[in-house]
Order: sequence, then structure tokens, then C-alpha cells
Amino acid sequence: MSHAVSPLAPAVVPFLPPIAGVRLATGEAGIRYRDRTDVLFIALDSGTAVAGVLTRSRCPSAPVDWCRAHLGGGEARAVVVNSGNANAFTGVKGRDAVRLTAEVAARAAGCRPEEVFIASTGVIGEPLDAQKFEGVLDDCAGRAGPDAWLEAATAIMTTDTFPKVATRGAEIDGVPVKINGFAKGAGMIAPDMSTMLAFVFTDAPIAASALQPLLARGAERSFNCITVDGDTSTSDTLLLFATGAAGASGAPRIADASDPRLGPFAEALDDILIDLAQQVARDGEGARKFVTVRVDGATDDTSAHRIALSIANSPLVKTAIAGEDANWGRVVMAVGKAGEPADRDRLAIWFGPHRVAVEGERDPAYSEEAASAYMRGAEIEVRVDLGLGTGAARVWTCDLTKAYVEINGDYRS
Amino acid sequence: MSHAVSPLAPAVVPFLPPIAGVRLATGEAGIRYRDRTDVLFIALDSGTAVAGVLTRSRCPSAPVDWCRAHLGGGEARAVVVNSGNANAFTGVKGRDAVRLTAEVAARAAGCRPEEVFIASTGVIGEPLDAQKFEGVLDDCAGRAGPDAWLEAATAIMTTDTFPKVATRGAEIDGVPVKINGFAKGAGMIAPDMSTMLAFVFTDAPIAASALQPLLARGAERSFNCITVDGDTSTSDTLLLFATGAAGASGAPRIADASDPRLGPFAEALDDILIDLAQQVARDGEGARKFVTVRVDGATDDTSAHRIALSIANSPLVKTAIAGEDANWGRVVMAVGKAGEPADRDRLAIWFGPHRVAVEGERDPAYSEEAASAYMRGAEIEVRVDLGLGTGAARVWTCDLTKAYVEINGDYRS
Repeated sequence: MSHAVSPLAPAVVPFLPPIAGVRLATGEAGIRYRDRTDVLFIALDSGTAVAGVLTRSRCPSAPVDWCRAHLGGGEARAVVVNSGNANAFTGVKGRDAVRLTAEVAARAAGCRPEEVFIASTGVIGEPLDAQKFEGVLDDCAGRAGPDAWLEAATAIMTTDTFPKVATRGAEIDGVPVKINGFAKGAGMIAPDMSTMLAFVFTDAPIAASALQPLLARGAERSFNCITVDGDTSTSDTLLLFATGAAGASGAPRIADASDPRLGPFAEALDDILIDLAQQVARDGEGARKFVTVRVDGATDDTSAHRIALSIANSPLVKTAIAGEDANWGRVVMAVGKAGEPADRDRLAIWFGPHRVAVEGERDPAYSEEAASAYMRGAEIEVRVDLGLGTGAARVWTCDLTKAYVEINGDYRS
Repeated sequence: MSHAVSPLAPAVVPFLPPIAGVRLATGEAGIRYRDRTDVLFIALDSGTAVAGVLTRSRCPSAPVDWCRAHLGGGEARAVVVNSGNANAFTGVKGRDAVRLTAEVAARAAGCRPEEVFIASTGVIGEPLDAQKFEGVLDDCAGRAGPDAWLEAATAIMTTDTFPKVATRGAEIDGVPVKINGFAKGAGMIAPDMSTMLAFVFTDAPIAASALQPLLARGAERSFNCITVDGDTSTSDTLLLFATGAAGASGAPRIADASDPRLGPFAEALDDILIDLAQQVARDGEGARKFVTVRVDGATDDTSAHRIALSIANSPLVKTAIAGEDANWGRVVMAVGKAGEPADRDRLAIWFGPHRVAVEGERDPAYSEEAASAYMRGAEIEVRVDLGLGTGAARVWTCDLTKAYVEINGDYRS
């Protein structure tokens, strides 16, 4: 909010083109914040397919429960997102609030409440007064247009310091299709999602039956590979909507995720999800360095992923990076605590191009000076080769700074 | 080091009485620190039994490998501990250094190298020059006496801000026995041990066959219930030595851990281990608040323990406590992310005596003012009742402050 834009924010904000069948508007519902937009309304044309990946928290928010209950229908006509209040741990009141929101939005969009998808982000445990949406959503529906992508990304921000948007193009059977997406998230970011909301839209005519596996696979490679603090939110929501409007240009309707004609689309989808996920890590609360952790030579990919997360979540590794200290001893510690197969005496560790350790001890050729100079950069890569097999993984995170503690010690008060 | 003593340090340092068969001395080997003791030598009378619990890290230090290899012998005649260098991830040099240390100490103690137990704490990845122990250990052996307990606890400190000692008495079959212990540890503290070293001594005549199960059980209830940062060290070592000297006063020699005559001893042992473990959490790097997390109503004790650790390790919960914020929403988040059975709508949460949430929403009777006043104290209890079963656990931790980041961003440089 009042914090300066992350130094790791992308230098350029891309322009997102309209996607036929998607109209957006933002408004001020006064949920928590003043003098800023805090609600997003999206109208979707009839026939829009939907897929979703939701938090694995055992204590999900009321909107997550709502989305989970209605994803099975496979169709969406409207989306409502608010910032400032997560409507999580709000009991019966929370369920009532999300139902009222769906009803208000359904009236505004001219659809059934079950076709409205809802996400909320912000403080947990405070009742959400959904009646505040009454006039606002109607008004948004009247104003909704094809261009308000950046406004949409801005309205859903909480502790984010910059709006996160991305766009990609692809072809299906020779016909161009578009993919736009935006996301929010800065803390409580962990694998298995986080207080992370992301919404992706395409005009490709892909049925929900194909959309869901594509999204689930894409989430594994993107949002499930970022971590800021290892904390998993009650509200994580990633939704993908396909209006099918490109069918009018001749794109075939596809209902099977393994259809080979989906190859380029799946690649573009993975790419936009990775872009958005990286932007979330780049906006990690208090982050000053963007960190890529690569693990090679593990017994398998799952093991590599667990070791990579153990490194990326270690407060000692993250504070060392904040301190610009090439402290590979802490990387060894994090490998060791992961509980995965590792042989101390085969380990090699790099910071960027600098190999600092090899065969279980300090690299004889290691220059502390060169490694330290590298650590002063804003983009840090930590690489570990376990020397056991061919399992590999890479995850993204950020450093742990005093600003993280400051932001999170003061957030609610 | 140069940091002020933790405000959570015990007000009184207990006096540790001599334990027959144990003689201690400390010296300056100049491993890393200047103008302070950094090596501890302990001579143990012939017939001393030993038990140990060592780190579960897959990348253990050379001294941990050494102890693990020789615990099977069940006998100990000397202990060497150094601070400043962990002799971890030091490859063949590390193995050679620990062997040389054992040989030097064995000559000083008049025993076999295999009867010497070794622990090292400090920086990882730097070769340890064990030749520096040559004269020092000889000198220590000459000076060793029954009273240097506090000096011992001080010599093994790294980022610790106070020495950690404790003493208890018990009876075995009506004969009084003594237990003394000391520990170090402040960061890289996690369940399954940590850069945590603890050494406990008794004059009880208990054989290694009984000592080992008693110690393993005690560690589960003490050192495996503390966490500072969720990071597990390569070097965690907890050793228990029984000289058997109380046999001379008539204490029976016991070789079976389930012998009912061991009841009071086992209780006193658990108690001293908990005392030392809590002192470690109280000295958590940058800690300003000592936090007890209790979980009740889980489906079983293991599940309760996992949920308690999820809360105690959550950076968002720990920063909220640092900010004196009764932010129970983050407690809900941490319960949810633990992956254990939980029903959001049955949860109740307390900060100390203040119930802040009940049946899945904010307690209607909750006073933010009263809860906030409670959070300004230095001893915080967070309690969660899951409302599912009778599983219970309690763990100890500390808050996460800017000082933690400061200490760990600057440690090596």
C-alpha cells in the first residue's frame, strides 16, 4: 500500500489487448480501503468455459468454497473480486456474504448466481459486508469495457507494490488466439498457492474438460514453484476462462487436453502463468532480490522440487541473500534438512556462475571476492547439483529483509 | 557475541553441583574467536555410559558422523566441544580433523580415541585446523575440575547471548542422584534438533542400554518441541553421560529403561531437557517474546504436533507476535496449511486467557483492547482447539523480529 514499488518490478508494463467476450470494470465499495478501487467486476459472454485451481488449505475462505462448489458446472458469466477483506474464517456470515455477492452480481450480469465466480483478498476473520456491493456491481456492469486490464490488476492489490499483468498469443490449428492474465500476491505466498489470486482469459474455444487439466499442469510449473514465506493462504485462487470467441475466426472447439492442436496454446499458457508467478515473487514483501533456486542431479524431479523449496523457504538462506553473503553453508543445511536423498560428499553449489563448493567441501578455486560481488546484484541464482541422478527442479523466491518483518508486524494495526 | 543478553533469559543462573566422575576445563584454541574460550574438554571416569540423539540432517557434520559411529560402544571417557567452526561440509579434511581431535584428546585423557565424543558448532564449510587443539587439550586435562559448569556452557556459545545451564535431583531406589546439563543454540533451531548442542551428566549407574531409550523419549518432548526458524542444523548433538558414581552410595545399576525404579529419574531427565530446550528458544536470535503454542482437540497427538509446529514456524504468525498484534487470522492460515485434519467451523483460538475466535469466526465477546494488552507481554501463549478429538501438543518458539534478519544477514561477514 504505502510501500514503495519493489525494485524488482518489471521495467515495462505490457499492453493487454481486448479479448472478445470479456468486459471489465472496477469500483470503490469501501470495504476497507479509502480513495482507491477495491472491487472488480468482469462480465463474460455466454458459453464461457472455466477451470480453476484453489488453495489446499484445510481452512479455506468462503469464496474458495463457493468456487469449488461451482467449478463443476464448467460455465462462467461473471467474476467478482474484492480486496481489503478475505471473507475467510467468517463462519455462517461468510457463506451468506458470498451468496449475496453472487446474487447481486448475477442480477447485474443477467445470469445465475452459480455462474458467478468470486474471490476475496485481505484481512482474515473480519465479517465482509456484501451489501456494499449492491449499487457498485450494477454500476460496474453498466460501465464494463474491453480495456480495463491494468485497472483490474490494480483494484485487487493488497500489500502488492505494483499491478501484475501479462499477455501472450498462440495459434490453434493456425488460428491466432490471445491469452491475458493478471494476478495479485506479495505475502503468504507458498507452494500450493498462497494469498495469491490470478485470473487468466482467452478467446480460444476450449471446453472446461480440456481447460482444467491444462491449468492444473500449468499451475504445477508456475504458481506451485514460487514461495515468499512458506505460508499458504486460505484464499488462493487461480481461474482460467475461455470465451471461445476465436471460434468465429475458425479456431476449432477442443474438448480434450491431450489434443495435439493444443500444444502451442499450452506452451503459451504455461508461459503466462510463469510470468505472473514470477511477478508475485518479485513483489515479495520487502524483497530486494529475486532468487532462482535450481536443483539438478536429484534422484527424481519430486525430490529435486522438495530440496529446492527447502532452500527457497529457509529463513537462514534468505537472510544471507539479503545480507549479500555467499553463505553456501546454509545451502548445505537446507539440503540436509529436506529429508530427501543427498550425499554430502557429492554436493556442488553455485551462486550464479561461481562454483563455491564441490565434492562436499569448499571449491579450492572459489573466490570469495567474486562471489560477493555477484551477491550484490538484484537477480540471484542458487544452483545445487546433488550428483545422484537426473531429477531437476527450479523455484523462485526472494530474500528475507527487515522490511518483511516491518510490513508483517504492522499490517493489521 | 556482541549482542545484548536476550530479555527472555532466566533471571537466575542456577548453581550446578559437582557430579562425581565428571571434570571440566575450558581453553582458548583460537579457532575463530579472539579473547574468549572456544574449546571445552571433559574427562569422564572409567565406566561412564553414553547415549546420544543426533541431527537427522542428510548432510551431517564430521563430528556427528564420528559420534554416530561410536555411540554403539556405549562407553565414554572424554568430550571435546569447540565453538567458532562446525567442521561441517569440510570433506575429507573434516574427517581427518575430527580423528586428529579424538587422538589428541585420547592422549590427554588416557583413553582410546573411540571413547572421545566430539561436537563442533559455528561456521559451516570452513576447514577446521585441529592441530590448534594439540597443546590446549593437554593443558585442559591437567586443569580439569568438578566445578567449571558455567565456564563450559560459556565456551560453546556462538550467537547465544547467555549460557544455558540446568540441574535436577532425583532418587533411584531411595538413593539420591544428580543430573547437570548445559546447552547452546540460538538460530538454526528446529525440531529434529538444530545447531543445538546439549550435554547432560548424571552420577546414576544406568547402562547405555537403558540410557538411550530414556534420552530419545526425553528429546521428543523437549528439543524436538522447539523451533526458532524451522532450520535444522548439520550439527545437532545431544549427549547424555552416566558415570555411575552413585553406585557407591547404594544406587542399583539399571540396564533396562522400563525398570520402574527409573520413574523419578526419567521425570527429572525430561524436566532438565525441557528446561534447556526452553532456554534455547528464549535465546532465539533477535527474540523479544517467548511463545508457547498449544494445540488441543486434534485427531491424535502427532497431528496436533504438526499443527503446533506449522503455527510456530509461520513467519506471518511470528512477525505478528513481534508486532504485538493478536492476529488470529494468521493462526487460522497456519492451521490450514499444516495439511492435517481440521474443520474451520469448529476452531477456537486463544491468546493467553483471551478467546478471540470460536466456531469458525471471531468470538463475539472478544475485546481487541484486552487481547492487545496481553500481546505486549514477553510471554505469549497461543492456543488452538480443533474440536475434533483428544490429540494434544505444545511447542515453544519465539517471535520473528528485525533483529533476527540483522543477525543472520551479517553473521558470516
